[in-house]
Amino acid sequence: MLKEQLDKIMRPKSIAVIGASTKPKTIGSEMMQRLRDYKFQGEIYPINPKADQIEGFKAYPSVLDVPSDIDFAVLIIPKQFVLETLAQCNEKGIKGICIISAGFKETGAEGVELELELAATLKKYGMRCVGPNCLGLINTSDDVRLDATFAEELPVKGDIAFVSQSGALGGGILNILRDLNVGFAQFVSVGNQADINAETMMEYWENDDDVKQILLYMESIANPDNFRKLASRITKKKPVIALKAGRSAAGASAASSHTGSLAGADKAADALLKQSGVIREFGLKGLFDTAKVFSNCPIPKGNRVAIITNSGGPGIMATDAICEYGLEMAQISDKTRETLLSFLPAAASVKNPIDMIASAGIEHYSRTLETVIADENVDMIMLIYLPFMGLKDIDVAKAVMDIKKAHPAKPVLGVFMTKSEFFTTISDMDVNMPFFMYAEEAADGLLRLDQQRQWMQRETGKIPCFDVDKKKAEKIIQQSVKEGRDQLTTLESIDVLEAYGIRACKYGLATTKEQAVSVANSIDYPVVMKMSSKTTSHKTDVGGVVVNIQSAEKLAEEYDALMIRLEKAGCIEGLEGVIIQEMVKGSREMVCGIATDPQYGPMMMFGLGGVFIEVLKDVIFRMAPLTDIDASEMIKSVKSYKLLEGARGTKPAQIEQIQETLLRLSQLVSDFKFIDELDINPLLISEKTGEGIAVDGRIKVRMAEAKEALGCSCGCGCGCCE
Amino acid sequence: MLKEQLDKIMRPKSIAVIGASTKPKTIGSEMMQRLRDYKFQGEIYPINPKADQIEGFKAYPSVLDVPSDIDFAVLIIPKQFVLETLAQCNEKGIKGICIISAGFKETGAEGVELELELAATLKKYGMRCVGPNCLGLINTSDDVRLDATFAEELPVKGDIAFVSQSGALGGGILNILRDLNVGFAQFVSVGNQADINAETMMEYWENDDDVKQILLYMESIANPDNFRKLASRITKKKPVIALKAGRSAAGASAASSHTGSLAGADKAADALLKQSGVIREFGLKGLFDTAKVFSNCPIPKGNRVAIITNSGGPGIMATDAICEYGLEMAQISDKTRETLLSFLPAAASVKNPIDMIASAGIEHYSRTLETVIADENVDMIMLIYLPFMGLKDIDVAKAVMDIKKAHPAKPVLGVFMTKSEFFTTISDMDVNMPFFMYAEEAADGLLRLDQQRQWMQRETGKIPCFDVDKKKAEKIIQQSVKEGRDQLTTLESIDVLEAYGIRACKYGLATTKEQAVSVANSIDYPVVMKMSSKTTSHKTDVGGVVVNIQSAEKLAEEYDALMIRLEKAGCIEGLEGVIIQEMVKGSREMVCGIATDPQYGPMMMFGLGGVFIEVLKDVIFRMAPLTDIDASEMIKSVKSYKLLEGARGTKPAQIEQIQETLLRLSQLVSDFKFIDELDINPLLISEKTGEGIAVDGRIKVRMAEAKEALGCSCGCGCGCCE
Repeated sequence: MLKEQLDKIMRPKSIAVIGASTKPKTIGSEMMQRLRDYKFQGEIYPINPKADQIEGFKAYPSVLDVPSDIDFAVLIIPKQFVLETLAQCNEKGIKGICIISAGFKETGAEGVELELELAATLKKYGMRCVGPNCLGLINTSDDVRLDATFAEELPVKGDIAFVSQSGALGGGILNILRDLNVGFAQFVSVGNQADINAETMMEYWENDDDVKQILLYMESIANPDNFRKLASRITKKKPVIALKAGRSAAGASAASSHTGSLAGADKAADALLKQSGVIREFGLKGLFDTAKVFSNCPIPKGNRVAIITNSGGPGIMATDAICEYGLEMAQISDKTRETLLSFLPAAASVKNPIDMIASAGIEHYSRTLETVIADENVDMIMLIYLPFMGLKDIDVAKAVMDIKKAHPAKPVLGVFMTKSEFFTTISDMDVNMPFFMYAEEAADGLLRLDQQRQWMQRETGKIPCFDVDKKKAEKIIQQSVKEGRDQLTTLESIDVLEAYGIRACKYGLATTKEQAVSVANSIDYPVVMKMSSKTTSHKTDVGGVVVNIQSAEKLAEEYDALMIRLEKAGCIEGLEGVIIQEMVKGSREMVCGIATDPQYGPMMMFGLGGVFIEVLKDVIFRMAPLTDIDASEMIKSVKSYKLLEGARGTKPAQIEQIQETLLRLSQLVSDFKFIDELDINPLLISEKTGEGIAVDGRIKVRMAEAKEALGCSCGCGCGCCE
Repeated sequence: MLKEQLDKIMRPKSIAVIGASTKPKTIGSEMMQRLRDYKFQGEIYPINPKADQIEGFKAYPSVLDVPSDIDFAVLIIPKQFVLETLAQCNEKGIKGICIISAGFKETGAEGVELELELAATLKKYGMRCVGPNCLGLINTSDDVRLDATFAEELPVKGDIAFVSQSGALGGGILNILRDLNVGFAQFVSVGNQADINAETMMEYWENDDDVKQILLYMESIANPDNFRKLASRITKKKPVIALKAGRSAAGASAASSHTGSLAGADKAADALLKQSGVIREFGLKGLFDTAKVFSNCPIPKGNRVAIITNSGGPGIMATDAICEYGLEMAQISDKTRETLLSFLPAAASVKNPIDMIASAGIEHYSRTLETVIADENVDMIMLIYLPFMGLKDIDVAKAVMDIKKAHPAKPVLGVFMTKSEFFTTISDMDVNMPFFMYAEEAADGLLRLDQQRQWMQRETGKIPCFDVDKKKAEKIIQQSVKEGRDQLTTLESIDVLEAYGIRACKYGLATTKEQAVSVANSIDYPVVMKMSSKTTSHKTDVGGVVVNIQSAEKLAEEYDALMIRLEKAGCIEGLEGVIIQEMVKGSREMVCGIATDPQYGPMMMFGLGGVFIEVLKDVIFRMAPLTDIDASEMIKSVKSYKLLEGARGTKPAQIEQIQETLLRLSQLVSDFKFIDELDINPLLISEKTGEGIAVDGRIKVRMAEAKEALGCSCGCGCGCCE
């Protein structure tokens, strides 16, 4: 269905250029030239009421005057004529549209209005549309040869598909790609994305054999949930590489919880890309270098790298980079070493890095590569060349590519520290490996290859569904909402967590001293006593928490003292009593919680809690809902995981139980989408059992949404009549 | 003195090429060609007993046959003839030498021997020497024009001085520099550094006006102390940029203390470079890009960056990079905005980044730059150009360079996302600003400029000398050494710290229960009781520490229990009693200490202590001795500094007192150079006073060195008779 629809745009049999022009240096003229020069394989119908012929093609006053069927229409006309022109297109049966014209939502309120109208019109007519406000699109397939852009250069054919959200940048990128001789299969400038966006194109390219990798330049993600679903699936088949700009924008508003304040504007985008298996780049150079690597390398079987060099220094630098990236330096097998020793000079080093020394000739390069590439201990190779008297760079490159040809399954990356002339020459050749000037660039490439390997080997994971008491949680939240509180009390928060099967420490509420003692007796000493209030949120600041109460007598004493303190601090109002809580002993305080990104939605956090949370920021974020694999990776990826494993004689934590806590929280926030913030801080690791126990909890909801979601029949809107 | 000596090598009036050859493709022939082709401004005397003329110069059988004086001799002869040839050179009065010949210490034991002999010979004759095993040297000054190398390309003149420790890499670098059109003033391949090393050259270049920046490729640092002294001084005058390779080598042996195990092989080099103000690069691309920036930019006055662009996307990416680097986005002044609004189109954005939009012509670039560069709120500018129809890259570049000419004091970096042709063209022109292809490269450059600015504005700092009881410390250590213990007891360690004026918690040693109580009474409760043993090092593991003892009765009880535990654990032997210690209350545990790098010497550590030390690694290293500024920077640069400032209602720590602790430790290790490891863990921050108090201490010495240093008159070597 989508394929059929988008084929009309990306593989049209005929194209109408509405607004084609005879006037030079206009978009309507430039695009006609591109279509002609790139030899579009279908029919071209320029539409212009004032011309008979444009760039050698017969022109028509309107699409309705064209005698044959038209698959695809490009609109290069003033915005005010767009809607009526679409009506004509509809009459003609055209289902594929690209609107180059600007003047829509990028221009302000009026434009937004017009774009909404446009989107509705497209939907009404059942049309799919690229743009408006875009550079156009390209398909380099031999049976299509469609260049419907007005970029300066004609495209180079290759296996990359590229979506750009910026038209201007897209043009620059096309220029550079041409210059770097990085070819692509298809290119789409999505512009304002009134209909087609990056996700549409990713889905279209998922099973397109012309497309071996997908590159994205994004300034926003249209539908994060859908993006995640698609990307997680497609990245298992081919690399998706994204440059997401705007990461420094102070987007997220100041939030009141820890989780919120740690979740900066870019955290959500970063989490989303990571858990979808998208390789993220932070600059165009990285994007292009990575594309070059994936264009010329298979995905390796492992992360063991061998370095072959004719100079020590670059070998050392490459080793540094590889070790820092966490890749492994391959253990060259004895057999390989023996073979190398048989033909390399005595001064050569046959340990990894393999230094053939400066006297290495072409024969040495060929035989060494041939020997090392066959070694089963080696997954990837970095081959370094420095110019020495008599040895020509291009000859070495050709020789190693000859060897590489016979070993298609192992990536070989060339580092040729030579003149730029070499790169110009090589970019016009048919190569089977990527060449870089510097070792660090090749090391980056090795890292990306390994990232993709790891992702492809990673289990997909499942979003589990636990048996929870949703009704109970709903009721508690409803009560808070009914009372106009967007922030649940500690007691309520812990009750909600328990309803979702999260291990919270045992507690009971008491409103009198006698009750307090009775609750404590049922829990067993030592206990903690905490004030529970509907108005005071940071309890410790007013002395509202007393720990390590060892006996009933001590508790009675402390109860009286607490009441005096609270009275003095003016905190008696709103006080709903004291919570008597099991005192969990443990020195390791973790934190987990939920923050909401205004654009991306709920995000899970996990990490080191306590006083360190904001100082050390040893926390990680992932978008909810989590899969079991997501949760497991979150726990293992924080530095403090070593504490959980039981550093320095502490009891190893129950990692699976903590993982389940995260997954249950994820289920909670999926069930109640209006939960804005949730903190479990600390999630204390019990020294006795290793469990992660929620010792404190805070839940905050978005009031209006909560009211709507919990909507009640009496019409007051607060859910009171449930 | 040094200048005079090295001028004989770098600015010789005459040069003898000993081993000059008529045989093509030999070093002796290639170098003669370079000397001739680069038009050396002095006399050239090829020395070869078998030739009359070489490359057009009259040849002589030996230097002794040359009728005139000779400043400088290059030796390109087999190693076995080097020493006798030096004797001839000495007879001739030649004081400047360069030995290209290999076969010295790089080849093993015999070569090491020969190189030692060589070094002694050079010293005897009062000669200065580059090499052996090197590529030679270059001086591009118009009145010298010396290319005494055998690299393929003739050099490009510029203002960079370059030392390379790798000959092969040096050759590659010369090729690339030529290709990038990055010019240099002088180049020296130091080879095995039998005499002249990177430090010698740095000192020579310190006041050389031809040299505006110094680049180093290093695999080791010959004399770390001297390097630090020189570099700290020179970096205040001109940028020194170093690529230090070999950072991943597992150099440091496993050490038994925390400080030791956290100090990896590269920590010392990194600390040394940082506190010397050297800009460190991790790859050649970075090295060259940075050199290009310093060649074409003044040091800015501040860190406020303005971005001028004709396309939104790259502007966003540049903003991202700048914010991530901690540079500031300049607040464009109202006046500047008004001026910009007067000529830019309505759709342009005059906030920073200033987006002139795609229609911007040359006039817009010129006027915008002219306006922004005059804004006092702007310290540096990144100017971005993307090709749009009709606007030529080279024209834009020329126009902005014209404006730049009138504003020499502000760095302007160009980002031209255009074809490589442009960079070829620009590299042949005389430019006054650096041009890059990508915004992230320019952002790197801005960061380096700001790093240099900060360093130049940074106070130099002083190494203070505190009034300490060195005698007492010496005596304690002597006693331990005398008893054959390289590890001091806790008690001894704390006594040494106290002798150096470091605030340790109050304590007393007791050997009986009664003594324990009496000591505790004098300190005041609560107290801590710790075993003190000459044989057990990790006390907690055997239950040897009891905290929070509230009264004399309790202490007596705990004393008995401890003795039973220790007996059971077999730790009674070696027990010298118990330490009764003041119990310092505080939740913030820091750590400080000393580790010794086998190559670089003693290194100071500071950071977050307790259980987090090895998990979170929030620690910083600096080489000892510390200046007051070093110590202050150490404290402020760890993440946990926020805890010290008094996060979450804790008492702000006494930062100056902690700084003094570090400085006193630094003095301690300078006084006793044989201290191998020293840990204060924890350095507890008192909740009462904010002081950092050494609660536990461990000192370990290098036995043999200690014995020698503490040498005694009785001849037993253990310092016993002091």
